Amino acid sequence: MSQTFQAQIHITLRASVLDPAGTAVQSGLHQLGYNNVSAVRIGKYMELTLTAADEAEAQQQVDRLCDQLLANPVIETYRFDVTEIAEAATVKCRV
Amino acid sequence: MSQTFQAQIHITLRASVLDPAGTAVQSGLHQLGYNNVSAVRIGKYMELTLTAADEAEAQQQVDRLCDQLLANPVIETYRFDVTEIAEAATVKCRV
Repeated sequence: MSQTFQAQIHITLRASVLDPAGTAVQSGLHQLGYNNVSAVRIGKYMELTLTAADEAEAQQQVDRLCDQLLANPVIETYRFDVTEIAEAATVKCRV
Repeated sequence: MSQTFQAQIHITLRASVLDPAGTAVQSGLHQLGYNNVSAVRIGKYMELTLTAADEAEAQQQVDRLCDQLLANPVIETYRFDVTEIAEAATVKCRV
């Protein structure tokens, strides 16, 4: 039986890649008076739900889809967590 | 003396707000054959460094700047973690 998992994916620019959006936000913060803020980097955060036979398969699949579609491995790195979701229907049966 | 902190900020669309980018990514994943993926939501992830007297002040400040500049509270929610950074210079002195 397949289980349902939620993946939380962080995609960030590699440290060596310039982040113009981050620089713009930092300058905006400085203009608002937050001069103590530095090193602003902006990345992407994605959540998705997937079904898989077990956690290992889910992790393998999320890794593959990050590499193929979600991240650009040339300038970005990614990391993710996969957690099983207790389905409402299953919980209902257990009560 | 002021300490240095790193803030990790997640900004996500409210559940009631449509996410066209997420829908586009989900359709791309389906076209690649990942038909078991659903509920794709895309948010922002930011990292920044700031100096503050203590962790409570750092948290208060990150909360304020999320509210004022980084997130749009009408359609987005945010959450963040603040952790102290051991400065290289300080570590050097301790050795």
